[in-house]
Amino acid sequence: MSVKQYIQENQDRFLNELLDLLRIPSVSADPKFKNDVFAAADFVKESLIKAGADKAEICQTAGYPIVYGEKIIDPALPTVLVYGHYDVQPADPYELWDSPPFEPIIKKTERHPDGAIFARGSADDKGQFYMHVKAFEAMMANNALPCNIKFMIEGEEEVGSENLDIFVKENLEKLKADVVIVSDTHMISMEDPSVTVGLRGLAYMQVEVTGPNKDLHSGTFGGAVANPINTLCKMIASLHDENNHVTIPGFYDKVEEYSAAYREELNKAPFDLEDYKKKLDIAEVSGEKGYTTIERVGIRPTLDVNGIWGGYTGEGAKTVLPSKAFAKISMRLVPNQDHKEIAKLFEDHFKSIAPASVKVKVISHHGGAAAVVPTDSPGYRAAEGAIMEAFGKKAIPTREGGSIPICALFQKVMGLDPILLGFGLDTDALHSPNEHYGLKNYFMGIETIALFFKHFKEEANK
Amino acid sequence: MSVKQYIQENQDRFLNELLDLLRIPSVSADPKFKNDVFAAADFVKESLIKAGADKAEICQTAGYPIVYGEKIIDPALPTVLVYGHYDVQPADPYELWDSPPFEPIIKKTERHPDGAIFARGSADDKGQFYMHVKAFEAMMANNALPCNIKFMIEGEEEVGSENLDIFVKENLEKLKADVVIVSDTHMISMEDPSVTVGLRGLAYMQVEVTGPNKDLHSGTFGGAVANPINTLCKMIASLHDENNHVTIPGFYDKVEEYSAAYREELNKAPFDLEDYKKKLDIAEVSGEKGYTTIERVGIRPTLDVNGIWGGYTGEGAKTVLPSKAFAKISMRLVPNQDHKEIAKLFEDHFKSIAPASVKVKVISHHGGAAAVVPTDSPGYRAAEGAIMEAFGKKAIPTREGGSIPICALFQKVMGLDPILLGFGLDTDALHSPNEHYGLKNYFMGIETIALFFKHFKEEANK
Repeated sequence: MSVKQYIQENQDRFLNELLDLLRIPSVSADPKFKNDVFAAADFVKESLIKAGADKAEICQTAGYPIVYGEKIIDPALPTVLVYGHYDVQPADPYELWDSPPFEPIIKKTERHPDGAIFARGSADDKGQFYMHVKAFEAMMANNALPCNIKFMIEGEEEVGSENLDIFVKENLEKLKADVVIVSDTHMISMEDPSVTVGLRGLAYMQVEVTGPNKDLHSGTFGGAVANPINTLCKMIASLHDENNHVTIPGFYDKVEEYSAAYREELNKAPFDLEDYKKKLDIAEVSGEKGYTTIERVGIRPTLDVNGIWGGYTGEGAKTVLPSKAFAKISMRLVPNQDHKEIAKLFEDHFKSIAPASVKVKVISHHGGAAAVVPTDSPGYRAAEGAIMEAFGKKAIPTREGGSIPICALFQKVMGLDPILLGFGLDTDALHSPNEHYGLKNYFMGIETIALFFKHFKEEANK
Repeated sequence: MSVKQYIQENQDRFLNELLDLLRIPSVSADPKFKNDVFAAADFVKESLIKAGADKAEICQTAGYPIVYGEKIIDPALPTVLVYGHYDVQPADPYELWDSPPFEPIIKKTERHPDGAIFARGSADDKGQFYMHVKAFEAMMANNALPCNIKFMIEGEEEVGSENLDIFVKENLEKLKADVVIVSDTHMISMEDPSVTVGLRGLAYMQVEVTGPNKDLHSGTFGGAVANPINTLCKMIASLHDENNHVTIPGFYDKVEEYSAAYREELNKAPFDLEDYKKKLDIAEVSGEKGYTTIERVGIRPTLDVNGIWGGYTGEGAKTVLPSKAFAKISMRLVPNQDHKEIAKLFEDHFKSIAPASVKVKVISHHGGAAAVVPTDSPGYRAAEGAIMEAFGKKAIPTREGGSIPICALFQKVMGLDPILLGFGLDTDALHSPNEHYGLKNYFMGIETIALFFKHFKEEANK
């Protein structure tokens, strides 16, 4: 039996195993799901052993554990390191989900006529890293594993991967590999398969603005005492100028300006602006002046408020002049922008623009560097070869707006360019209610990943 | 026995009755307290009967009932109408209360060395309208009621008094009086007793800004799609210019500009800016350029955000570009500004400044007109006389920043200027956690109110 046949014959089981994993609410950001995050780690370890790993272990960290597994068939052969994460984003707001986020169901959609799995984590990243476990099983079951394989599946990707950072630095020998492969990104479409070659970095901040020392009656004091919400709004508004450039001094200092030729190449990727606006139900896109939508998410840094709160937010009216207002603000970064430096620039600037009538606190939640992957490596060529064989098309290299902070670490500490071979779509509602992942994407992904191993052995030996 | 003696001998009972009333969480803004609001109305009715009313009744409305009571001793005598409200503001945020908001306790404070009652509604307005019930009882018990008395105590003051408006218009004959007296304001201090002669109006709005049709991943879409929180902040920031003037076109059209002489008189009221800042723990006050703090809350309209929310507000970090952001925004108005007109100006302006990349919804929660009371009426002179007799000082006329929308109705529909004889202090944390009301203020208030009746009979007969 071929690997491809094996995958087809085991589709039902491959799907049901993933659904079991999706039923575990492994939300790393919220301590109330702590036991579930640990349970998900156990699930991953067991699945590696069942798939054929020589060993699989739960590696404890100061936070959530890293699951490590390996199958070394011959030290002389090339080694592929698979990275993924078993933690998921919070599912809030629950009321916007059409079905409960941790009770996966299959439904057809316009872009997934064969059905998609609706569940938090289906695309990010349980459904995607689990393709590697199943591709590994399929190769093992058919005596067709062409390279050594190592797995490193973490539980803190959605909260900054701080402990993975330490783990990688302390386990360089154990993790030694010739390439690292990550399926945690999306492709343009099943008709236009693509490989991500750029990811943005991230600096995630939280700010607190305090006006008076207690909530006040907005009649007795309104107009005479600074309102921290009005003040926070003014401060946030001032972080962009009229062209939507970020106004933090030094923010763009290290941002690379690309040549007209490079930008032209980037804009050749299939993209339909009218369709994009229609899907999001917006009349206009909005972003930095002088750049296209593809450039705005691919090669430009941004600043977004991810959450804001203060004062009375219940039913009806309360005439309060609140003591405090809060916001979560994150910046997506591009190569060369250091997230710690940007976090510091933000903090200094935010404090400097606060009027004397309020006090300001700034804390940094987490961050990570951007990454750009070259397209002339054996790993990239192997990804191209696998996609050509599975999809019959040449992969389009794309730059994606999201962040996988650990990618920069792979490059800096391990000297490995990560191959970002993702199979989700940008309409899969990652980090949103009703996240889903196409069944066809899942099964084609497993097949393509198995082909990647075959091509990588060939490319590595060239 | 004199009325004063009676009040002194019954202090404990007068206090305990008020504490019972404060234990009823009659929050009119929040439907979950519905039964409690009705229970508070019953309490008020019973208390009027016990105090000596000829009749007291629960008058149903489309919302919460109005308690009406009266004692007519002689149709030829002048009649005093007492207005107050038994509903209270929401107690949120509960965690900032040092003791539960509906379990009153007595504690001493710097400004209340004899002790103060800590509970939601203690100063606003249960503790204040209940002084009238007890002054009435004291006068009745001593055969010393010099005028007829009518009570109209409502349950919707904190949500806009819409049904009171209808009730007053439909019961003009029943409510007929020579003066209306309201204790729902504050005085400068026990050393500087004052009578409020101006109140601001209110227009309370809620806005909703929608960007994309669902929450998005801030990496995949950030920088290319308008973020409704950033957009809302920008829109809110633009509602004030660099001098803290409100920028809504037409907002100031009907605002009266006062003469230098009037403003000078207004600023003669005792006010210590350093002490004010110290109590609120702020380094600087903040408000409309060209006006003092007293003017900013007394004679100038304002715009304050009372609440804001959107995106992820839980623990940790979530990289979401939310679909929606919300804010509650209220404007305090001055005489001649029509709250319905201002609500419309706000709505039109807010929609006009929305960029094409978002959709905006605006709703109006409630509103009310400002009021200014002349100081040459029999009622005002009676208040002056009562304060002089009780405190040994001449009352200072002040303009207060809060709103009692019904006051304008008394003037317009009943032709009566309300006498705003309040005994709270501006540090009593109205609408805030740890609201309290001084014991001395409560007992002195009862005594002063009884004196008001004596003086009013004299003034009305002059």
